[in-house]
Amino acid sequence: MTPTIPYGGDYNPEQWPEQVGEEDHRLFTEARIDTLTVGVFSWSLTQPAPGAYDFTVLDRVLDRAVPQGRRVCLATGTAALPPWLAKKHPEVNRTDFEGRRHRYGQRHNFCPSAPAYRDHAAALAERLAARYAGHPALLAWHVNNEYGGACYCGLCADAFRAWLRDRYATLDALNDAWCTAFWSHRYTDWDQIEPPNALTEHWRGPDHTAFQGTTLDYFRFTTDALLGCFRAEKEAIRRHDGATPVTTNFMGAYRPLDYHRWAPHLDFASWDSYPPLDAPPTRPALAHDLMRGLKDGAPFWLMEQTPSTTACRDVNPLRRPGELRLATFQAIAHGADAALYFQLRASRGACEKYHGAVIGHAGRDDTRVFREVAALGRELEALGDATLGARTPSRTALLFDWDSWWALEISDGPSRLVRYQDVVHAYYRAARTAGADVDVVPVTADLTPYDVVLAPVLHMVKGDLAARLEAVAARGGTVLATFLSGRVDLCDRAFLTDVPGPLAPLTGVRVDEWDARPPEVVQPVRLGESVFEARLVFEIVLPRGAEPVAVYGADFYAGTPAVTRNTYGAGEGWYVATALDQPGVDAVVRRVLARHGLVGPYAGHPAVESATRVAPDGTRLLFLLNHAPGPARLTAHAAGTDLLTGRRVEAHVPLTLDPLGVVVLRVQ
Amino acid sequence: MTPTIPYGGDYNPEQWPEQVGEEDHRLFTEARIDTLTVGVFSWSLTQPAPGAYDFTVLDRVLDRAVPQGRRVCLATGTAALPPWLAKKHPEVNRTDFEGRRHRYGQRHNFCPSAPAYRDHAAALAERLAARYAGHPALLAWHVNNEYGGACYCGLCADAFRAWLRDRYATLDALNDAWCTAFWSHRYTDWDQIEPPNALTEHWRGPDHTAFQGTTLDYFRFTTDALLGCFRAEKEAIRRHDGATPVTTNFMGAYRPLDYHRWAPHLDFASWDSYPPLDAPPTRPALAHDLMRGLKDGAPFWLMEQTPSTTACRDVNPLRRPGELRLATFQAIAHGADAALYFQLRASRGACEKYHGAVIGHAGRDDTRVFREVAALGRELEALGDATLGARTPSRTALLFDWDSWWALEISDGPSRLVRYQDVVHAYYRAARTAGADVDVVPVTADLTPYDVVLAPVLHMVKGDLAARLEAVAARGGTVLATFLSGRVDLCDRAFLTDVPGPLAPLTGVRVDEWDARPPEVVQPVRLGESVFEARLVFEIVLPRGAEPVAVYGADFYAGTPAVTRNTYGAGEGWYVATALDQPGVDAVVRRVLARHGLVGPYAGHPAVESATRVAPDGTRLLFLLNHAPGPARLTAHAAGTDLLTGRRVEAHVPLTLDPLGVVVLRVQ
Amino acid sequence: MTPTIPYGGDYNPEQWPEQVGEEDHRLFTEARIDTLTVGVFSWSLTQPAPGAYDFTVLDRVLDRAVPQGRRVCLATGTAALPPWLAKKHPEVNRTDFEGRRHRYGQRHNFCPSAPAYRDHAAALAERLAARYAGHPALLAWHVNNEYGGACYCGLCADAFRAWLRDRYATLDALNDAWCTAFWSHRYTDWDQIEPPNALTEHWRGPDHTAFQGTTLDYFRFTTDALLGCFRAEKEAIRRHDGATPVTTNFMGAYRPLDYHRWAPHLDFASWDSYPPLDAPPTRPALAHDLMRGLKDGAPFWLMEQTPSTTACRDVNPLRRPGELRLATFQAIAHGADAALYFQLRASRGACEKYHGAVIGHAGRDDTRVFREVAALGRELEALGDATLGARTPSRTALLFDWDSWWALEISDGPSRLVRYQDVVHAYYRAARTAGADVDVVPVTADLTPYDVVLAPVLHMVKGDLAARLEAVAARGGTVLATFLSGRVDLCDRAFLTDVPGPLAPLTGVRVDEWDARPPEVVQPVRLGESVFEARLVFEIVLPRGAEPVAVYGADFYAGTPAVTRNTYGAGEGWYVATALDQPGVDAVVRRVLARHGLVGPYAGHPAVESATRVAPDGTRLLFLLNHAPGPARLTAHAAGTDLLTGRRVEAHVPLTLDPLGVVVLRVQ
Repeated sequence: MTPTIPYGGDYNPEQWPEQVGEEDHRLFTEARIDTLTVGVFSWSLTQPAPGAYDFTVLDRVLDRAVPQGRRVCLATGTAALPPWLAKKHPEVNRTDFEGRRHRYGQRHNFCPSAPAYRDHAAALAERLAARYAGHPALLAWHVNNEYGGACYCGLCADAFRAWLRDRYATLDALNDAWCTAFWSHRYTDWDQIEPPNALTEHWRGPDHTAFQGTTLDYFRFTTDALLGCFRAEKEAIRRHDGATPVTTNFMGAYRPLDYHRWAPHLDFASWDSYPPLDAPPTRPALAHDLMRGLKDGAPFWLMEQTPSTTACRDVNPLRRPGELRLATFQAIAHGADAALYFQLRASRGACEKYHGAVIGHAGRDDTRVFREVAALGRELEALGDATLGARTPSRTALLFDWDSWWALEISDGPSRLVRYQDVVHAYYRAARTAGADVDVVPVTADLTPYDVVLAPVLHMVKGDLAARLEAVAARGGTVLATFLSGRVDLCDRAFLTDVPGPLAPLTGVRVDEWDARPPEVVQPVRLGESVFEARLVFEIVLPRGAEPVAVYGADFYAGTPAVTRNTYGAGEGWYVATALDQPGVDAVVRRVLARHGLVGPYAGHPAVESATRVAPDGTRLLFLLNHAPGPARLTAHAAGTDLLTGRRVEAHVPLTLDPLGVVVLRVQ
Repeated sequence: MTPTIPYGGDYNPEQWPEQVGEEDHRLFTEARIDTLTVGVFSWSLTQPAPGAYDFTVLDRVLDRAVPQGRRVCLATGTAALPPWLAKKHPEVNRTDFEGRRHRYGQRHNFCPSAPAYRDHAAALAERLAARYAGHPALLAWHVNNEYGGACYCGLCADAFRAWLRDRYATLDALNDAWCTAFWSHRYTDWDQIEPPNALTEHWRGPDHTAFQGTTLDYFRFTTDALLGCFRAEKEAIRRHDGATPVTTNFMGAYRPLDYHRWAPHLDFASWDSYPPLDAPPTRPALAHDLMRGLKDGAPFWLMEQTPSTTACRDVNPLRRPGELRLATFQAIAHGADAALYFQLRASRGACEKYHGAVIGHAGRDDTRVFREVAALGRELEALGDATLGARTPSRTALLFDWDSWWALEISDGPSRLVRYQDVVHAYYRAARTAGADVDVVPVTADLTPYDVVLAPVLHMVKGDLAARLEAVAARGGTVLATFLSGRVDLCDRAFLTDVPGPLAPLTGVRVDEWDARPPEVVQPVRLGESVFEARLVFEIVLPRGAEPVAVYGADFYAGTPAVTRNTYGAGEGWYVATALDQPGVDAVVRRVLARHGLVGPYAGHPAVESATRVAPDGTRLLFLLNHAPGPARLTAHAAGTDLLTGRRVEAHVPLTLDPLGVVVLRVQ
Repeated sequence: MTPTIPYGGDYNPEQWPEQVGEEDHRLFTEARIDTLTVGVFSWSLTQPAPGAYDFTVLDRVLDRAVPQGRRVCLATGTAALPPWLAKKHPEVNRTDFEGRRHRYGQRHNFCPSAPAYRDHAAALAERLAARYAGHPALLAWHVNNEYGGACYCGLCADAFRAWLRDRYATLDALNDAWCTAFWSHRYTDWDQIEPPNALTEHWRGPDHTAFQGTTLDYFRFTTDALLGCFRAEKEAIRRHDGATPVTTNFMGAYRPLDYHRWAPHLDFASWDSYPPLDAPPTRPALAHDLMRGLKDGAPFWLMEQTPSTTACRDVNPLRRPGELRLATFQAIAHGADAALYFQLRASRGACEKYHGAVIGHAGRDDTRVFREVAALGRELEALGDATLGARTPSRTALLFDWDSWWALEISDGPSRLVRYQDVVHAYYRAARTAGADVDVVPVTADLTPYDVVLAPVLHMVKGDLAARLEAVAARGGTVLATFLSGRVDLCDRAFLTDVPGPLAPLTGVRVDEWDARPPEVVQPVRLGESVFEARLVFEIVLPRGAEPVAVYGADFYAGTPAVTRNTYGAGEGWYVATALDQPGVDAVVRRVLARHGLVGPYAGHPAVESATRVAPDGTRLLFLLNHAPGPARLTAHAAGTDLLTGRRVEAHVPLTLDPLGVVVLRVQ
C-alpha cells in the first residue's frame, strides 16, 4: 500500500496559525515524514454547533499533503466531546465508577450508550467520509481514539440489562451463571440488576466485587458497548468509502477492553506504545506481539510513540540517545508496518504541552530529538518496502486471555498480589530471551502451528480449549500451565472437580489446597542443581501421573512438587505451581523450548533480542537488537546482508552490535 | 443442652442441587458434624416476592437433620436484602459515609432506620418462627449476621435526632454536651443537626471529626439502631418460640458496635474468629475473653472460623497442619461451648468461592483439610460434655470500653498513631503470657472478684468507675492505668482538673503536658536494671504521692517518671505514662501480678498458653496449649488426667507438649 | 499604636461560665497578656437567629478589658456558619472538589459566591462595627479567619463565568488563552464552562487537570471570590469605623490563595505560624518574610502560634523548653509587631481540646507552659517599643509567585515531584544561613533596592518582569533563576522560543530538553572541587553566552553545564538547571552573595540566625538566635547593648549564646 514504512504522527494544525503549517512541512520533508494523523481531537472545530460543519482546517491539511507527497490518517475526532454537545445532552457525559455523573471536561468522556453521542458521532464520521472518500491523500481512517474507560449511568444500566437478556435469555440462566443463591441475590426482574460499581457490588475499588460474574459481564458489556460505537462509525464511513482501511488505536495490554472481541472489526490493528518507566524491552515487545496476534499475525501500525518524553506521569524521563531508533526497529521487528509519533509539533497549552514532540515550542530543526527523528527517517526511507507485509514464523504461542485477566484480578483469594500481566510477561520474557519468536494469541486461536504453547495464569478455561491443548501435546508438542489456571468456567464458577479442572488430564496433577503469603516470604524451589525463589502463591500438588521437575524447599509442603511434567501422548503437559522468580521461569521455559530445538543461538546474550520476519516474497529477515548501552559481541549464526548498512555478514564469524545497535539481516 | 460441643458450621444447600445434600450428610457424619447453621443469606429464596414465601429448602434441611441426629442453628436471613425489596423501597439501601445513597448490591446493606427494612425483616423472622418453633432439629436462632457498618441517610438523620432528644431532652443540654460554643455550632433547632460524615463534620475520614461529641453519639446511635433491628426480630421470634435461645454472631473486638450494649439482649454470645494475618495467639484469645465477658463469664459459641483459608484479604494464607485444632481448643479453653466453621461446602461462585471449606469444590473426603476436620470431630466427640458450661476463675480483669476506644481514636491530638486495640492487646498479652486468666469486662462490671484490674488507655471515665477502682485498691488490690486515661467525660469533654482526672487520687500523679513523636523516635525507659523502648506518646508525670517505678532516659524530661506506683489503702494504683514496647509492658504487668501471686508456673515458656475452666460440677480443667512448631518441655505443676488421651500426668515431673499440641488436664 | 508588643491571643469566654473570666484575667495579668482576640467563632452566639443579636459576651469581654488595660482584636466571626443559616439557605454550604454539596458542619464552610452568606456576613460585621467603633478596648478588626478552600457549586460556576467575561471579554480570547483547540474544548457559549474539578477537567486530584489554564483561572477566581467576602466585610466596618485597622489572619505560604492580590486591601498583615513537624527554623522564617513582603516591608502581626502543641496533626509534639521564646523572638526579628497565641484557655471539647493553650484544663499557673509564657511576657514588657515599626534593610530579594507555584504544581510533566515550596525554601535557606537578610517579594515588586534577586522555579514570567530582572543585572546586580523557570506566560501557554523564554537573554542559555528521574536516581554535580547531588529534573543546557559554573557528572549529558553564569551589563545572570541538594544550593548562593559582600559574619555557624531591623528612629537592632540545643560561641562583629539583658557586647570579643538563646543587640 505504501512504498516505505509510513513515518510521521499526530499533527494538530488547528492549534496554530496557518503560516506555521508552511514551516511544519519544511521540517517534515527534512525528517522524511510522509504520514500525518489528523483531526483526532477536532470535533469542536469541525462541528462547532449542532448543524454546522467547518472543514477549513482539514481541507487545508489534506490538500496541502498531496503535492508534498504526504498521506493522511484521518481521524473521525469523536473521542472528545465538543462543549455544546455535553451541554445540550448532559447524558452524553459519563457516570463514573463512584456513580457520579460528570459534567463537561477531559476527553474519552462520552457515554457509549447515549443515543445522542452515538448518533452525533456517526453523523460526523459520515460527513467526513462523504467529503474525503477518494481524496488522494487519504491513507486510512482513524476512528475515535484510545477507546477505554467505562460508564455506569442509567442508560448503560438499561443497555447492560438488554445485553444480559441477549446473553442469558432467562433470569434463571442468569441467576445460575452468577450464583445468586449466594448473599440473597436471586433476581426476579431484569430491572433489579445494577451495573456493578462502588454504589452496588464493589468495595474498596474496581477489583473488589461481591459478584465476580456480574463484574466480569460488565467488563464484557463495556467492551461491546464501546465496540458498538466503533462499528457505528465504521458503518457510517463505509456508506461512502468502501475501500480505505479503517482502524482505531489500541493501547497494547489494556485491561478494560477485550481487544480480541474487537479484532474482526478492524481492517488492521494499530497501537500506542508508551512503556512503563524503566520497563525491560520485553514489555513493549509483548504488546507488539499481542497486537500482531489480533489479526492472525498480520502487521500492525505503531500509531503513537513519543520521540522523547511523556507528560502525564509523575516522572517523565527522556528517551536517551539511540533509544527511539532502537524502539522503532523493535516495533518493526515484531510486525509494525508504520512508525508514527505522538506528536509532530508540541501543543502550546493544556496537559500535553510538555509531551515530547518532533518539533518543539521553539520550532527548531537543530535539537537532538529532531536530528534523531530525521536520521531515523532517512534510514526508514532507505529500507523501503523490505519489511512491509512480512510475517513472524513462530513455533511458540503464548495464550493471552482478557477473561482470565479479569477473573484473576477481581478474585477474592488467594492473593491480590498476583497480577496477570506480571506472570504473563515473565513467561513471555523467558521465551523471548531464550531466542524464540512468540505469537501472543487468543485462546480461540488455531494451535496447530505451534510446538510449544504457554498458558500462564489461565484462570478461566472455556469451550474446547482444554481439548485443543491436549491435541497439541498429543501430537508431540508441549503445553505449560501455571498456578491459578483451570479454576473457573465462562461465568467464573469454580469447576466442581480437582484443580486444575479441565487441565488436569493434560498436566497430570491434582491440587487440593494453596497457600498465599506476603511478598517478603520467599519459598526456595530446587530445580536440578539450582535453587530459585518463589513468592505469593504456593499450590500444593499431588502428582496424578506427572513427575516432579522442581520441589519446594520449605514449610510443611517442603519436598512436594513445585513444577511437574506429565507425558501426554507424544508430548508433555507442564505445571508450574507457584510464582517463580524470573531466573526460575527462564530455567523452566528453556527446558520446554529445548525439547523442540527452540532455544536460539543468542540465548546467552541477555541484552540481545532477535526476531524474525518473512517478507511476502519469502525473504527471511533477522533483526538483531542490542538493548545494552555497551557493544554486544556475537558470533553470527547465519549469513546475510544488513539492510541498514549494506554490510555483508558471514556465518560463524564475529559480529559486533553497537550500543543500542540494530542489524536487519536479509538472510541468505 | 447438647451432649457434646456442637460441631459444624454454615451450610448453604440452596446453592446446590438436592442430590449434593445426600453426599454432604455422608461427609458430615464422617466428620462428626452435628450442627448446621442454615439460611444466613437466603432471604431472596425464602421470600422471592413481597407476599410469597418458599420454605422448601429450609424444610428439607431441617427435616433431613432430625433422623441424622443433627441440629440446626436457624438464621433469619435478613443480613442481605433481596433484590425486589431494594428495588421497591430504595430507601432500604444505605447511604454511606460519603453521603452516597447506594443501590442494590453486596450484603449488610440495609438502612437500620428504614421502616420498610425493619418491617420486612421482622415479618420474615416471625414467619420462620411460626413455622419452625418446636421443630426437633432447632437448636438456636441466629438473627441476621455480623451486624455492622452505618447509614447516613435522611431516615437515619431523623432517627438520630429522635435518639438525641431522648438522650438530652433539651437543646441546651445537647449544646453543652457537644461544646457547640466552639466553631459557632450552637444549635437552635433539632432539625439543624446532621449525621456526622464526610459532608458535614468530618475531614479525611471517619476518624477525623470537628466534633468528637457528635461523632461519638453517632457511634452510640448506630449501635442502638442496629440493636433495634435485632430486638425487633427477636421479639417477632418470641411471639412464637419462647424457649429456643436467640443470638447473633459478633466479630470480636469490632469497633463500630458497642457489644456491651447488646449483651443483655442475647441469650448467649457468639462470634466469628478470623485473626489478622500472622497475629499472635493472644489476639484471638483477647477476643474470646471479650466475648465471654459479654454475658458475665458465660460460655459463648465460636460461630465461625475457617477450616483453611480466608478469601477477602489481599493475602490469604493456609492454616498449617495442626493450627485449626490448636485454635479450636484455644477457643474452648477460653469459654467456647461450640465450634463451628464457615463453611461446610465451598460456594461455587461469587466472592467466597475461594474461602476455605470443610468440603471443597471436588467434594472429596481425602483432602488434608477434611481429614483434620474429621479427626478434630472425633476428638470433640470423645471429649463429650466435659467442658460444657464451664467458667473461668479469673482474678485479673482487663477493662474494655467501646466509648474509650471511640474517643481515643477520633481524638485530634496528641497522636493518631496510638491505637486502642494495640495498647489493650499489649497489656492483655502481658497478663496472659505471665499465666494469668483474664476476664475482659465492661467498665460497669462488678470488680469485687478481682485482685488486679488493668485499665489501659481508659480515655473516658464514666459514672462511679473511679470510685469502684479506688475500692479495688483500698481493699488491697492493684489497679493499673496508662497514658491517655482519665481524660474525658461521657460527652468527650476534658475533665477540668489535672490529668488523669478522676483517676488522679488513685494513681497519685499529675500530668500537665504530653509529648508525641513519630514512631521512629525511641525513648529509653529504665525499669530497675532493664531498659525498654517507648514510643508515640510521652506524658510528663509530676508525682503527687506516687513513687517512680521506671524513668525516661532521654529528652528534656529525662529522669522523670515513666511508670509510677501509688499506695492506696491496702493496695496500689499504677500509672504507665507512655507506650512501652511489649517487653516493657510484660515487665510492668508481671510486677503487678507477682504482688498477688498471679504469675503462673509456665510463665517462662512464652509459647505455652495455659487456661483454666471450672465445670458446673466443680471439676477444674487446665488447658495447656503449645503455640510453637517444636515440642514444649515443661514440668507439670499439677496432677491430673489428660482428657484427650486419657493419659495420667503427675505433678513435678516432666511434661512434653507436642508441636502445636494440646493437653486438657482434669486436675485432681 | 501600642507601648509594647501586643501580647496575648485567641480567647473564647463564650465557652465558659462567667466566673472563669475573673480567673482568666488574673492569669493574664500574671503573664503580662494585654491583647485578646475575641469572637472568632461566635456567630451562632452573637446572632442566634436571622434577626436576633446578643452582644452579652462581647460587651462583657470588651468592657472588662478596659480597666485591666487590655485591648481587643475583635473578630467579625464569619468563618463558621451558624446552623440556622446553613439550614435556611442550604446554598451557603460549599460544594467540594468532588462535586458534593455539603450539609452543615465544620468551619470555613461557606460558599463565597452565595448572596445569603455574603449578605449575612457583611450585616453581622456592620452590626459589630456600629456597636464597638470607638470602644476604648478596640485595637483592631479581625475579619473572618484563615480564609481558604474553594467551592464548586452552581453559584460559583456562574460567578466564575462572570469573572471570565471580565477577564477575557470574548470567548475567542478565552479559547485562545486556554488553548481549547486541544481536546475539542472550543467553547461557543459561556454557559458551557464548568468549574474545573473531579467531575470535569481533573483526574486523580486537584493537581491533575486536563486544562492548566482553566484550573489556574479557578485558583485566581477563588482568590478573588474570597477576597470579595473580605472586602464586603471591611466596607461594612468602614461605614462605622474609619480608623481602626482591619486585617485577617493569613497562613504563610498557603497555596490556595494568592495573598499578593489581597495585600492592598489589608491595613496590616497578620498570620498564624504552625511550622511543619521538625521543620528547620528557616521554614517559619520564610513565611515571616513572605508576610512582611505583603505590605512592602511593613511589620506584621504574629496572630497565632501554639504555646505548646498542635492538635490536628497525626503526631503533635511539644515545643521543648525555650522553643516558644526562641520562635517568638524569631518572629520579631523578621518583622512581627505582635505576638499572639492560639489559644489562651484550652477549649473543653471538640477537635481542639488537646491543642496547646496558655491556660490548661486545670486552670493552673504553675505549669511549665504557663511559666514560659509569663516569663516571655515579662521580657516583652521590658523590651517596650524598641522593635515596633522597625523595618528590615535587605539587599537580597527572593521572588515568590503564586502563579508560578500553581502552574508548576498542576503541570503535567516533567516531574510531579518538584514542589515549589521545597525549591524556594532551599534558596531562601541558603541565603539566610549565609547571613543575608532577605525580602520575599512579589514579581511586581520594585527591584531597584536589591543587589541580588533569587528567582527559583519561576515557572511563569509575566508583564515586564524579564526587563526588570535584566535591569538588576545591567546595573551590576546578580539574578539567579533555576530549572523550570521562564516556561509559560500568564495563561500557562509555553513560550514559543527557546527555554527559559524571556529569561534567555539574561541567563545566556538555551534548553531544548529536560530529563526527569525518580528520586532515588542521583546525578553528581561538580562545582569547583566539590561534588553535590542533584535529583528529579535535569535540564540540558546549551550555553549561549553563559559560562559553566558546575557540570553534570553522569548520564549522556555528563560534562554539560548544570549551573551557569552569564555576564549581563555590569552584573550577572545565573541559571541552575537542576534540583541541587541543600549543600549545592548553599554553595551556589554563597558565590552569588559573596560577589556583593552579603555573606554575613556568622555564616560559619549554621545554627545561628542573624537578622537586622532598623527602628523608625534609625536604631539598628541585630537579632542573634541560636537554634541549637547547645551554646553557640561566636565572636561579636559589632558592639552594642543586648536589650534583653542590658549587657554590653563589644566587637571582636567572644560572645556566647545560650542554648536556644537570643540576643537583641542595639548596635552602636
